[in-house]
Amino acid sequence: MQKQTDYADAVKTKYPEQIVIAVAKDKTGRANPITLGWTMLASGTPPMMAISVAKTHYSIQTIRFSECFTISFPSADMAAQALLFGSKSGSDTGKFAESECKTEPAKQIDSLLLSDAVANFECTLVSETDAGDHIIFLGKIIAAHKNTEPKKRLYTIGPNHQLGKTT
Amino acid sequence: MQKQTDYADAVKTKYPEQIVIAVAKDKTGRANPITLGWTMLASGTPPMMAISVAKTHYSIQTIRFSECFTISFPSADMAAQALLFGSKSGSDTGKFAESECKTEPAKQIDSLLLSDAVANFECTLVSETDAGDHIIFLGKIIAAHKNTEPKKRLYTIGPNHQLGKTT
Repeated sequence: MQKQTDYADAVKTKYPEQIVIAVAKDKTGRANPITLGWTMLASGTPPMMAISVAKTHYSIQTIRFSECFTISFPSADMAAQALLFGSKSGSDTGKFAESECKTEPAKQIDSLLLSDAVANFECTLVSETDAGDHIIFLGKIIAAHKNTEPKKRLYTIGPNHQLGKTT
Repeated sequence: MQKQTDYADAVKTKYPEQIVIAVAKDKTGRANPITLGWTMLASGTPPMMAISVAKTHYSIQTIRFSECFTISFPSADMAAQALLFGSKSGSDTGKFAESECKTEPAKQIDSLLLSDAVANFECTLVSETDAGDHIIFLGKIIAAHKNTEPKKRLYTIGPNHQLGKTT
């Protein structure tokens, strides 16, 4: 049976929520990673993914500048990196330099892949859509990569940035 | 270490993937549910959610007609209903009539809530965005409901529509 409640209460039932790390270069050429829980596949043919990014975040500028970005599925052993990339701003911090996150160049776009991730998807920017206090960026996937070892994907498993794997 | 592969292979690492059931009425007043794995939160203030719906699906017409829809988080014991709502077309089938899914009227929009779901969100249509073979519908959440009993959310846990709960 349903009981009406406020949005903030009802949305607590969303967990576990998948996580991605999106990477785009800024105008100085510095790659900026951001951790996002608001993401989905959006098209099958051609393959596309969507991410929703807060308007206040530096990543807005980097994606608009680059017109491309990587979407990475972090592995369950990347929780510390996901927390770092989700809590600091890339406008004044080189987030990759502060982390021990291993990267490698993307193949088709000017961005980076996360070497220890479960998978990485190289996207070109298709469109952006205004969504309240966020922007939805839609990316067309033009190259895909997966880890040579099987890895479990990282999720937000509860409030206050509790990260972990699922079974 | 990353190895380039085709998209269809890399995207198999996405599981578990959350599921929602979106409900909108058609021009005859019949409520049409569709099961979707491609969904995300999209804005915090005001709260918004996005869903990506295949262009061939009857739900496109129902959402455009109603200009509102419910997003429901099915519970882990709703797998049979989720499979039914995801595999039949509402253009020639009354999917609710064929199922044993309990519903109740939405409070703020002309749609239905799923009584046994974990939570339900009433949305008004904000925009639609072309996304390859899908349409992204963005909805503003104007009312929210949760189950009076604690329930586990339903996920796609592997290929070929394997549904289940996570821990």
